[in-house]
Amino acid sequence: MTDKEYMQVALTLARSVKGQTSPNPPVGSVVVKNGRIIGMGAHLKAGEGHAEVQAIKMAGGEVEGATVYVTLEPCSHFGKTPPCSNLLIDSRVSRVVVATTDPNPLVAGKGIERIRKAGIEVEVGVLQEEANELYEMFFYYISTKKPYVTLKTALTLDGKTASHTGSSQWITGVEAREDVHKYRHTHDAILVGVNTVLKDDPSLTTRLPNGGLHPTRIVLDHHLRTPLDAKLVNDQESTTWIVVNSHVTEEQMAPFIDRGVKIIQQAGEKIDIPSLLEKLGELSITSILVEGGSEVNGSFLQHHAFNQVVTYIAPKLIGGKLAPGFIGGTGIADMNDAAQLQYKSIEQLGEDIKIVAVPYHS
Amino acid sequence: MTDKEYMQVALTLARSVKGQTSPNPPVGSVVVKNGRIIGMGAHLKAGEGHAEVQAIKMAGGEVEGATVYVTLEPCSHFGKTPPCSNLLIDSRVSRVVVATTDPNPLVAGKGIERIRKAGIEVEVGVLQEEANELYEMFFYYISTKKPYVTLKTALTLDGKTASHTGSSQWITGVEAREDVHKYRHTHDAILVGVNTVLKDDPSLTTRLPNGGLHPTRIVLDHHLRTPLDAKLVNDQESTTWIVVNSHVTEEQMAPFIDRGVKIIQQAGEKIDIPSLLEKLGELSITSILVEGGSEVNGSFLQHHAFNQVVTYIAPKLIGGKLAPGFIGGTGIADMNDAAQLQYKSIEQLGEDIKIVAVPYHS
Repeated sequence: MTDKEYMQVALTLARSVKGQTSPNPPVGSVVVKNGRIIGMGAHLKAGEGHAEVQAIKMAGGEVEGATVYVTLEPCSHFGKTPPCSNLLIDSRVSRVVVATTDPNPLVAGKGIERIRKAGIEVEVGVLQEEANELYEMFFYYISTKKPYVTLKTALTLDGKTASHTGSSQWITGVEAREDVHKYRHTHDAILVGVNTVLKDDPSLTTRLPNGGLHPTRIVLDHHLRTPLDAKLVNDQESTTWIVVNSHVTEEQMAPFIDRGVKIIQQAGEKIDIPSLLEKLGELSITSILVEGGSEVNGSFLQHHAFNQVVTYIAPKLIGGKLAPGFIGGTGIADMNDAAQLQYKSIEQLGEDIKIVAVPYHS
Repeated sequence: MTDKEYMQVALTLARSVKGQTSPNPPVGSVVVKNGRIIGMGAHLKAGEGHAEVQAIKMAGGEVEGATVYVTLEPCSHFGKTPPCSNLLIDSRVSRVVVATTDPNPLVAGKGIERIRKAGIEVEVGVLQEEANELYEMFFYYISTKKPYVTLKTALTLDGKTASHTGSSQWITGVEAREDVHKYRHTHDAILVGVNTVLKDDPSLTTRLPNGGLHPTRIVLDHHLRTPLDAKLVNDQESTTWIVVNSHVTEEQMAPFIDRGVKIIQQAGEKIDIPSLLEKLGELSITSILVEGGSEVNGSFLQHHAFNQVVTYIAPKLIGGKLAPGFIGGTGIADMNDAAQLQYKSIEQLGEDIKIVAVPYHS
């Protein structure tokens, strides 16, 4: 097998754990000696062994002289676990193949440098593009300290998220609705406006055939209007954070805190999206799935505060001047100033179309 | 070459004249003898020779014993020209291959029957599906006596046709905008609301690299608010019809009629879409391209009066609760009652996505 083929295996391992390693990135590793895979592994959970450690452990005594494939540059610093570069050196492997480098300033080439200095051959860049795609969220978080934001919506072909009476179940078919839960699994947090809570009393958990990790539930709720008996306040399925403005009193917050809800109080009257994202980054939220409400989406658009837009378009026409759309608020005045995106993928998913778009970089 | 290959040539000839033969269908024909094409032709314009006539004319004296490929069943009645079935019989061809039959009650199998009775071998159904696709508009018109309606719109990814200030130029890129003109070329009429005329003063003509046929311009204008100096009243590029309600007086209409505009006056206060479509069918309009205005689109949705929905989606977000969308009016109340479509094609066109959808038939 070629380097690319072994790396493809390592990438498959890495992708399979996307969503369960946060705030760490998903990494996969394969150890090969004399044309035989002798070890494989992935980083399963923050605080537990890194991918190379797992794979080398499986290889056991045979590891000396082996080639180690790893999807992301091995770390060189003491975090919750000792540096992987040390382990590779101590294991006396003969060659390390890396898909892409880690822009984390604590790593950034230092891991590779250490290994090379120890006389081990290092090759960087095998399937780099695929790896960079996998690490898009992580690299954004590591470089900006702010969570990667995905705006998600389901629309009728005429651009509506509900009828003029508020009827919205269901716009899309089962395939699209299940796909949304994969995004919940792979994002650290899900964010909605209080109107969604008042209208639907959602649980905002991940419902996939074999379970899935529940994101932290974040509600934008200036005046703390979330009902005390709301599902996400009481169900203990995941943590719930409510973002309120400076006017909300300790007394109002107390019963929520008693129920285990975290209140994030912001200065001022309005909730400021950019400073909220900084705050959430500090709280180790590396990615957020924004599931709307058109006013909430409007706030994110206003600040161009998104990295990805996932749209499911159902083959339906509902009409209605007053029926809500994807993005409310005032909106942008001139079409020439519209937020410019580029399509990353367009696919048919069951009866619906799924479109993934990212901000346009010329 | 096989029957399918010759028929593919005939279909290409037919497709090339789509839009220029109305109210007749676009038909292509190829004449083959001893493995050589000896004639080819298409119906070029209503009142002129049918496809088989053109192709047989090209074949000249060699036609006896030849095989004639034709995309639509040869006619058997005297219209503006004598029946093609007679010509085929008189030309003593030995075999006729037909892609699909003509549901026109004046033809409907009678042409084929006549030819067979004359001892000529007839084969029907070669590339029938492709031919039926080509004749979708014509078959609809022939069976219902009403024009085939295409709703066309350009939207931002968040479903808007303009910003909250009305800014709408341009939503889509050049490829999508040029594609729209192909639809203008292949539809008999283009229909807009008076608000579009008041706002943009459009010419609604077909602008393609090598010209194109201009559709009849139809304006829905209850109270006859179209300005007398509007482009489509004065430019003589194509015919213009204005649809008004019963309150509009002869005096109001007179200056428009003087300028060559046809006024279609409907009974009652509101313009009734179903009866308008019947009227337009009587006036030999076989197809209409509805280029919106969200209120006009709302009227067509309300009556489920459309056969096809063509949507161009631009990779842009404009936002705005008050920014207009594809379909205005009241809209449908319950999501379960939404007009159900099915996607016919999804393609990327330049930077945009083009989606063609048709009403769902289970």
